[in-house]
Order: sequence, then C-alpha cells, then structure tokens
Amino acid sequence: MRIGVLTSGGDCPGLNAVIRSVVHRAVVDHGDEVIGFHDGWKGLLEADYRKLDLDAVAGILARGGTILGSSRVQPAHLRDGVERARGHVADLGLDAIIPIGGEGTLKAANLLAQAGLPIVGVPKTIDNDIASTDVTFGFDTAVGVATEALDRLKTTAESHQRVMVVEVMGRHTGWIALHSGMAAGAHAIVVPERPFDIDELTAIVGERFSAGKRFAIVVVAEGAKPKPGSMAFEERGKDIYGHERFAGIGNLLAVELENRLGKEARPVILGHVQRGGTPTAYDRVLATRFGWHAVEAAHRGEFGMLTALRGTDIVMVPLAEATSTLKTVPAERYDEAQTVL
Amino acid sequence: MRIGVLTSGGDCPGLNAVIRSVVHRAVVDHGDEVIGFHDGWKGLLEADYRKLDLDAVAGILARGGTILGSSRVQPAHLRDGVERARGHVADLGLDAIIPIGGEGTLKAANLLAQAGLPIVGVPKTIDNDIASTDVTFGFDTAVGVATEALDRLKTTAESHQRVMVVEVMGRHTGWIALHSGMAAGAHAIVVPERPFDIDELTAIVGERFSAGKRFAIVVVAEGAKPKPGSMAFEERGKDIYGHERFAGIGNLLAVELENRLGKEARPVILGHVQRGGTPTAYDRVLATRFGWHAVEAAHRGEFGMLTALRGTDIVMVPLAEATSTLKTVPAERYDEAQTVL
Amino acid sequence: MRIGVLTSGGDCPGLNAVIRSVVHRAVVDHGDEVIGFHDGWKGLLEADYRKLDLDAVAGILARGGTILGSSRVQPAHLRDGVERARGHVADLGLDAIIPIGGEGTLKAANLLAQAGLPIVGVPKTIDNDIASTDVTFGFDTAVGVATEALDRLKTTAESHQRVMVVEVMGRHTGWIALHSGMAAGAHAIVVPERPFDIDELTAIVGERFSAGKRFAIVVVAEGAKPKPGSMAFEERGKDIYGHERFAGIGNLLAVELENRLGKEARPVILGHVQRGGTPTAYDRVLATRFGWHAVEAAHRGEFGMLTALRGTDIVMVPLAEATSTLKTVPAERYDEAQTVL
Amino acid sequence: MRIGVLTSGGDCPGLNAVIRSVVHRAVVDHGDEVIGFHDGWKGLLEADYRKLDLDAVAGILARGGTILGSSRVQPAHLRDGVERARGHVADLGLDAIIPIGGEGTLKAANLLAQAGLPIVGVPKTIDNDIASTDVTFGFDTAVGVATEALDRLKTTAESHQRVMVVEVMGRHTGWIALHSGMAAGAHAIVVPERPFDIDELTAIVGERFSAGKRFAIVVVAEGAKPKPGSMAFEERGKDIYGHERFAGIGNLLAVELENRLGKEARPVILGHVQRGGTPTAYDRVLATRFGWHAVEAAHRGEFGMLTALRGTDIVMVPLAEATSTLKTVPAERYDEAQTVL
Repeated sequence: MRIGVLTSGGDCPGLNAVIRSVVHRAVVDHGDEVIGFHDGWKGLLEADYRKLDLDAVAGILARGGTILGSSRVQPAHLRDGVERARGHVADLGLDAIIPIGGEGTLKAANLLAQAGLPIVGVPKTIDNDIASTDVTFGFDTAVGVATEALDRLKTTAESHQRVMVVEVMGRHTGWIALHSGMAAGAHAIVVPERPFDIDELTAIVGERFSAGKRFAIVVVAEGAKPKPGSMAFEERGKDIYGHERFAGIGNLLAVELENRLGKEARPVILGHVQRGGTPTAYDRVLATRFGWHAVEAAHRGEFGMLTALRGTDIVMVPLAEATSTLKTVPAERYDEAQTVL
Repeated sequence: MRIGVLTSGGDCPGLNAVIRSVVHRAVVDHGDEVIGFHDGWKGLLEADYRKLDLDAVAGILARGGTILGSSRVQPAHLRDGVERARGHVADLGLDAIIPIGGEGTLKAANLLAQAGLPIVGVPKTIDNDIASTDVTFGFDTAVGVATEALDRLKTTAESHQRVMVVEVMGRHTGWIALHSGMAAGAHAIVVPERPFDIDELTAIVGERFSAGKRFAIVVVAEGAKPKPGSMAFEERGKDIYGHERFAGIGNLLAVELENRLGKEARPVILGHVQRGGTPTAYDRVLATRFGWHAVEAAHRGEFGMLTALRGTDIVMVPLAEATSTLKTVPAERYDEAQTVL
Repeated sequence: MRIGVLTSGGDCPGLNAVIRSVVHRAVVDHGDEVIGFHDGWKGLLEADYRKLDLDAVAGILARGGTILGSSRVQPAHLRDGVERARGHVADLGLDAIIPIGGEGTLKAANLLAQAGLPIVGVPKTIDNDIASTDVTFGFDTAVGVATEALDRLKTTAESHQRVMVVEVMGRHTGWIALHSGMAAGAHAIVVPERPFDIDELTAIVGERFSAGKRFAIVVVAEGAKPKPGSMAFEERGKDIYGHERFAGIGNLLAVELENRLGKEARPVILGHVQRGGTPTAYDRVLATRFGWHAVEAAHRGEFGMLTALRGTDIVMVPLAEATSTLKTVPAERYDEAQTVL
Repeated sequence: MRIGVLTSGGDCPGLNAVIRSVVHRAVVDHGDEVIGFHDGWKGLLEADYRKLDLDAVAGILARGGTILGSSRVQPAHLRDGVERARGHVADLGLDAIIPIGGEGTLKAANLLAQAGLPIVGVPKTIDNDIASTDVTFGFDTAVGVATEALDRLKTTAESHQRVMVVEVMGRHTGWIALHSGMAAGAHAIVVPERPFDIDELTAIVGERFSAGKRFAIVVVAEGAKPKPGSMAFEERGKDIYGHERFAGIGNLLAVELENRLGKEARPVILGHVQRGGTPTAYDRVLATRFGWHAVEAAHRGEFGMLTALRGTDIVMVPLAEATSTLKTVPAERYDEAQTVL
C-alpha cells in the first residue's frame, strides 16, 4: 500500500506523534510506503511531498509542531481543487490519504472522500471541540500549559492582592478554560457557550474580597462574549489600529474588573504557548493510537472515516458525522466547576 | 447532611483534590458538614478525625499526598472492625462516608456497605487497574513522571551507546509501563500480563544495535516476570539481606541484557517519585469531578456505589462489581505498542 | 535577639525561601525571636506583624509569592515615615530589621539605616539589575519560565512560517531577554540598553527567511525602545483607553515586522507568569543563603549592609553602594548573543 | 582557522549547546571551519570525524546528550596516543582543538597541550567538582532534576509517615546533594566530604519524629561513606552478584534507618535521569558562553587553557591548574545547610 499523510490547520502538540505512528505501523508492520505532503493540503494540490521512512520520523515523537509543515489552504479554495487532488493521488499511486487536522481540514477531507478519494481522517485541535471523539490530542497539553501558568499566577496574585484575568485559547468553545480553570481552582470561568453578565462576574469576584481573601483568578476563553447590553464590548473592542487584535476579552475584562472593584486587575494572555512544544504523555499516547488505527482502517478499506476515542477504545466514525456539529461545554460540566470560592 | 471522608492505601496524586472537591460541593452548595478521618480506615475505627471547612482545604488542590494521612489498616483487620465503624458512624451522626482508595480500600468499603453503612467510594490508584472506570486519577501523573524520565534517559543512552532498563510501578498490571513506554518511544515494554522470554527480549534489543542504532530503552513494570524457565529469576531474585528488596526486575534485566548483548546496560528504578507531588491537570480535573459526584450520589442516597469515568461522563457503579476483577492490559493495547523499532 | 522581616515591592520567586531561612537560622541556631511585618514597609509603619516560628514557615520553601504579603508603600511616602518606623522598632524591641526587596525597597532601607535603624537588606528582583550582587534570586526562575515558553513557541513558529515576538519582563534592563534569548536560541534580542533601529531589526529577521529558514524568534524586553526617529513609537504607543497598557512594545513590534516583512508575526506577552510560582532550585539555594547570611550579619552588628553574591560567596555590601547604579547588560554580554542566525 | 571539537566522558546536559556555540561563533563570525570528532578522544585518535556547519547544529541547543557521541577512551590509553593525535591534527590541518570534558578529559587535554598541541579546554561535569570554575554547566540541570524529585517525594513521605533516603550523583563531592538538599529542604544531607556517623544521622532523623513530624527526607551522595567503624559497610556493600552494583549507599542507609528508627524508610536512587535531557536555561547560557569564549581564546592563540566562570565573567585558566585539585564542599557551605529541622 502507498499512503500519503499531511497536517493542516493550526499547530497542535502531537502532530509529529501521529506522523511517526503512521510511518511505523505502515512501514514496519505492513511493508507500506508512506509519503508526507508539505504544508497541508497545499502539498497535495501541488504534488509537493517527500518520502517518509523510519529515519525521517526518528526522534520526532516528543517534538511539537509538524515536520511536514502546515497551512490553511483547502482544496475548496481552488476552482479545480478536488480534481487536482484526484489527479495527484492517481499519479502518485496512493491507496490512502491520511489528513490530520481540525474542523476545516476534516470538512475538506469529507469533500474529497465524497468525491471518491480514499481518505482516513485524524482529528486534531487543542480546542477539543470535535464532536465525534471524547478527546482530541493537543488538548491535554494546552490545558497543562494553561494550568501551570495559573498555578504560577496564583501566588503572585495573592502577594499583591490582585485579580488576575487569564485569557486562554478557545474561540468557539470553553474546554481549555473549563479544564484549566478546574485544575487550577480558578474563581470564575468564562466560556463562549455562556455569554457573561459583567455585573454578575464582578459580584462573584467581589465576594471573595468581601470574604477576606486576598486575590482572585478569572479564566476566560478568547471567544467569550458579554451578554448583549451587559458591557460596552463592541465599541471598546478595537485597538489602536482600528482592529481587535490586542484588545481581546482578557484585556478588556481586566480593565472592567479593576474599575468596578477598585482592586488591581492584571490581564495575562497566554496565547501561542498553549499550542506549541512537547506534547504531554497523554497526547503522545492518543496521537500514536490515532496514527496506528488510521493505518489499520486504510488497510481494511474503511475510507471516509475518522479515528475517534470512545472511552478507552479507538473507533472509526464517518467524516460527515464528525464535522456536523461543534462539541460545546454542556451545562452539567460547567456546573461542576461553579462551586469554587 | 454530615459526611465523613478518608484516604486509604498508597499515596496517589489527586487525593487532596478529591478531598477539596467533596468539601466545596458539600459545604458550599449543600450546606453539609464534612469531617475527615485521619490515616485512612484507622481514623474511622478509632474515631480520630477533624472538621473540614473551606479553610481546611484552601490551597491543597495542586498538592500531592493527602492532608488526612493514610495507612494500610482495614476494618477487616480487627475482629470487631465493622462493628466499631458502625458505632462511630452512629455516634458521629454521619449520613455518608466517602472512602478514597484502591482495590483493598474498595473491598473494605464494599464490606461496610454490605453491612449497611452509607458508603460512596472513590477509586484511586496510580496503577489504573480498577476495572469499573476508564481511568483513575493519579495514573496520568505517574505516566507523566515516568515519561519525563524516559525522555531524559534517551539522550544519555544515545551518547553512551547504552541500554537503559527503566523499572516503573505496576505490581500486577502494566498500564504505567505501556503508556509511558508508548509516550517515550521505548523499544521494548515488559508487563506483568505477559511473562517475558529473555531470549526474545534480548533479540529485540539486539536487533536495534545490529541495525546501527546507538541505544535502546526498555521499560519494565515492577511486577513483570520471566516465562518459567526463561531466566534464573528465582535464585537471583534475592538481595544481600536475603529478600528481594533491591534486586528488582529492573536491576536483574539490566545485568542480564548487558551480559547477553555485550553492551553497557544501566537500570533506573523510578520508584516513589511516580506517586508523589503535584498532580497533572488531567488528574486534578478527574479527582475534582469524582469528589463532586460522590457528594451528589450521597445526596441521592446511592450508597454501595463507586464513582467511575466512562468516556467523558462520571457514572456510579456498584462497589461489588468494581472490585471483582483487575483491569489488565488487553492484548490489542499491547500490540499497538509493539511496532516501535 | 529580636528580628523583624518584611517583603516589599513586586513579587519574586524565592521570597518565602528567604523568610524561612531567616527564621530557621535565627530561631534554631541563635535562639532569636522573629516577627514578620505584613505587606512590606506598610506593616512596619503600622506595626502590623505576626510572630514567625518554625511552624509558620513550614512548607513554604518551594512556594511562590510571600506569606507576608507585599506592597509598594515606602517610609518616605509618609511625612513621618522614618520616625514612625523608629518608634515601632523601639516599641517592639527589635534588634534588627531585614527588608527583602528591590531597588526602591533598598533605597528606603538605606534611608532608614542612615537614620540609625539596624537594617540588613536582602536584594530581590527578577530583573537582576541590582549592581552590587552577581545575581538576584528570582531571576533564574523568570529566565526559566521565559525559556520554556520560547522553546514551545519555536515549534509552532516553524510549523506556520511565522515570526514570534515574545515580550519578557525588564523595564530598565535586558537581563531576562538576554538570558532567555540565549537559552532558547532567539534570532534577535532587543533590550532597553540599546534602542533598536527598526530597519536593522527587520533586516536581521528578513535574512533568516531569505536564507530559507521557516521562522524567527524575537525576544524583546518590555522596556525596549526604538531609536529616536526609527519608528513612530510615541503616537502608536497608546491603547484604546489612551494609555500604553496593552499596546506594549511586543505588540507593536509584531505589527511592524508583519507589515514590513510580509510574513505572519505574532506577539506573545509573557507577563506575570515570569514572577510567580515555585522558584527554581538555583533561586531557592541563593535565597536560602541570603537569609542565612542576613541573620549572621545582624548578629555581627553589620548594619546598613546588603547580602550579595560574589562568585560563589555571600558577602556584605553597603546599602548606599548597592542602590547607586543599575546593573545594565554590558556590551560584551550583548555581543556574545549576537551570533545566532 | 580550522577547529576540531570533541565531547568526552560522562553525559552532561549542555554539551550540544557548547558544540553549537563553537560552530556559530567560529563559522559565522570568524569564517572558520569546524569539524567534530566522534565519540571523544577516540575520534581524534582514529581520525573519525565529520564537518560541522550551521545545519549540523540546528535545533540542538536544548537537546540533552551530545550529537558527537562520547567515550571514556583517553590518548594515554594508547602507547602512541599523543603521537597519533599530533599526526591527525597535522594531517587535518587543525589550528585548534576544543575538547569538552570532565577531570579525566582535561588531564588528557593538558597532556596534549604540554606536547604542543593547540588545545582550548571546556570543563564539563554535572558534579561541579572542577576547581578552577565557579560552576560547570550540567550541574544546575542535575540539581534541578534532583530537586523536582525531592519535591515529589516529600508529599508521599508525609502521607505515609516515612523516611525517604534519596541517593543523588556525586562520587567524590557532595555538590548535587548539598544544593538539591538545600533547595528541597532536606532534613539531612550526607556528602562524601564528611564520612557520616550512623548513630548521629539516626538521631537527627529520629528527632524529627520525636518532635511530632510525620516524615523525613535524607539526601545522600552516591559517594558518601560511613565513618570507619560506624556501620558495617564493607560486608554489606555487595549485591547478589558479589559486587556493589545495586547495594549502593542509598539502599543501605534506608535499611539501616528503618531498622534503627522503627519507621518505614524507602530508598530512591535517582541515577541517570540526573545527567540526561534538556538543560536548564542556566546551563544553556553557561555552555553557550563557554563555547563562544573557547573560540575567542583559540583566535587569540591562548592554548593550554580552559574556559572558566568567575563571578559573571568567563576567564581563561591554565589547564594544569584546573586539574590539580578537586573542588569539594567547604565546611561553611555545609554548615549553611545544617539548620533545617
């Protein structure tokens, strides 16, 4: 069998672990050939690739990033994207393509699968918002990085009697905020799924100080928004260049809470450190299993499918199903995190 | 409601997170009273306890160990253990007891539950061998510590052309060995579930050197045993004091591999570092959820049950069921890890 | 002897280690009494303090922050600050006061020492800019945190062909930028000591891409400024609220480099994570030694002095000398870091 | 100029950082050529080497181990070692050789230097026992790894009311034991420089339990020995194979303390994890500076010298002086660590 693999979309710890696992399983156990396309779908569309043998993947298991590079190019971006892809797959004699990516990548994968290409997808997102799998690799690392930062910020907040407002990743869902906030014992967790009321949030934080505590930690997902009318978000949401770049929700909330509480509030925007660097053991194991099972699915001819974790098992799920909805934080999970004072 | 909580058995990162979560949920949301028994079942048998309010659990979420202490005493160790426990529960007016512990603790919990005491168990073991839950807290931390050590050992092994034999915890099951071995890309993983053939193991490691590689990493669970007749394990398995204390399987394997391969082999026995210290974010979240749901179960009157993770949900499982079998590494999981060269 | 200790100014990993060491050395070895003033000089000025015995400092060695709290209040802020301090020292029967703090704190300490109070200072700053000591505790931790973030950012920058502009602490000096930049192999390091020319900086970063590299890392100290005329810094230096809060140099440089290079550039502002959390072993040892030697100096009657590291020795230096100049990054140290491509 | 570089002796975090720094400084700033000998002096003696350009050292700054490999072979091991080395240096047209190594390596370097070869040494040892430099790279990483382990062990020791006996590296000197023990607040630190009295050690540990504490941490350097007559060390010092391999001082002390105190005592032998893996920021900076200054010394024609840290400066010291004595833990440094209870 000849297998092509590619990584597409935002960076995510564990990508290299999947690539390595695909190569190990395919080459060693099945005697397959594996090629890696450069910079995501772009590599497939331009037939830009290299051979991946065991040496090519030596030492990459614990490394962040992707040795194949990534881009946000999608086949649908080109008028003849699907045809081009089909042509290169035929020319290269590929029996399977394993794209590793997030929601956008998997939608593209589904498009190609429906056009008859032999696709086995591997889901990837630090945001953990892909519905068909219990967890995606990269999420545990992101939560770990955020939690470590929160652990550090607690002591400095306490020494200075401050509110720390920590903005973590999560444009559409609050999984990183929820888990890192629970793990670090944050006093308020603000997620996109629940537009916040600034009065209510001020009250929650204020109560801590009333109760004699010296500090408070607020974790906010970058995609969190105030309830309509709760806070003059829109007008304020622009930076000096006229766009929202640096005046994200974390910065705004810090200003707002400081003004309302009369306590020093400091924003910390964790940003890209959450998606780079060495993956946790959890993510390495999950990524390795995904790669292994993607190769197995290819050998069984199960195309148009996606690897997914269900409980402790890796199962295959239709691509179409996987990309239909976003996995948001359910009410009961959010409630579990509300007790902290 | 009045709830008693205790931690019993070996140390495990996340115990404090459960205690804190029980107190937060019970005291803040339900207005309950919580007491903590000292040193496990011993505290219950001797009515040795203290009140746990919010201040008592402040700042313990990220701390290893258990603020309540632990011991290996079980009610069944005393002729009148069950009666004593029953008496103290009545005297103290307890509506629920939440023991946090491993297999032995949960068996004791089941005994007391069958005797009519209002028990809600919380499973705990770094070994991950409790059958009724997908994962136990503490396991992720142990795997993380072992993986970090393996990452470090790889570079030193390579510089010196060595075999590193790393013994990790796991008396009866190989979960820590399997996951840390997969996460770190170990070249051989030896687990109790599969008695090893020393000739075969030597061949696997030897092949790496034949293929021109400069080092090999072998991960071995402390409970791993050679196939009968494969290695003179019994006679060698004693140390200078006549017991097996320091001549564990890691040390023995290193000697054996060095002699057979003619390559330097060094043992590293990770030992107790795997079960101490700050829990990972994953374990803190899981432990917090277990504590939260244990209180909920108590309030619903669901006694004789155990909190368990199934997929992404926390469910309640009968104590009897939970302790009937050990969760061992299944063949397919072991196979997934066999490809590494 | 009766000793008062206080922590003043910004947070710094290692403060608790000093406090603990003072208490251990004074109480155990000398049979002294130690009290700790709350929230820095404020505690001394208001006679707000508590007794510090061995139990009070148990378990704090590895903890970030300060158990005594801190503030930026200085005796000179009050008209009768010095007199008040003198009065409380007399009333409390103090034989020595050990203030732990940065430049401002040590200036205040010098003021009080010149007024005849028995002061032994301990220098503290993550910025490492105190002239009289080779290193201050807290610096190593800050550099470690920044380096770990840089390590993570490298892989994500490479995957996405990006420039990462990482702003680290250092208002007046570039020590953290220099050391973390060297440790992580940054491609450009921008420090306050050398106003940068934006054209030159653009050229350095641009050369990497011309040479076929996929990414670049720029480390910039928060206090870095462009050469006059080099970049429209002043006008841009204001955020939406009309102050410079969120439009720091890191954000501005990222915008500028992206516009000039036509490559994605992303800012990461590390902020307060650098000054919180558990100190590195290096900082714990240095802090412990400073505390130990401060007590010794007090017992020898060496007042008006400061503990300082010189090579491997702890020596005492006059407070006046210590606060006269800032230790800036010398040209030769900066040159050592310029080779990286 | 043509420069040869080699790494010899035991593994040490920071070796790759030196190699990279030598290449960067020499190639980029001086236009030199650099070759790297394989496996230490062996590579020089057998003219086994490869060219080191910028690509060859890309990405190695943060990696443990050495890309050049190492061995314990010394020129003096061969009858014609010096002549061989001289011959290869002439044949290869080398203007300078930069050996990076510990005491043995530097003695060999001195031998070759006295024979007229153009040697600039770089000291390396995790043990920190080289007299002419304040610190060696690798030491900070080793202390950091040991401290992290000790932090973890503390919580588990406390939960179980145990004595933990932690054996760290240090065959001849106790620097790692001293610094990690101070950093982690160990209750007894046992170093080779001071043969211990087992009765005294038992008393120190016992006092903690008498004072109501629940645990004790003992850090012991692998080279520590009991005072003659204090403990039956010799007879016990053999393992089941008749040599001392697994019955090191850590194991023996744990048995002894358990027997004498009637408290559970557990040994943890940290072993090779202390010398592998990614170096701390401190070690990376020091290693980078050493490499930079070694190249400068070569260009100034300062041969027969060694790079050394003195305060904050890198200076050059005669090789002969550097290897004449071992830097042991002085009494006053040991005393500083004795206060902990």
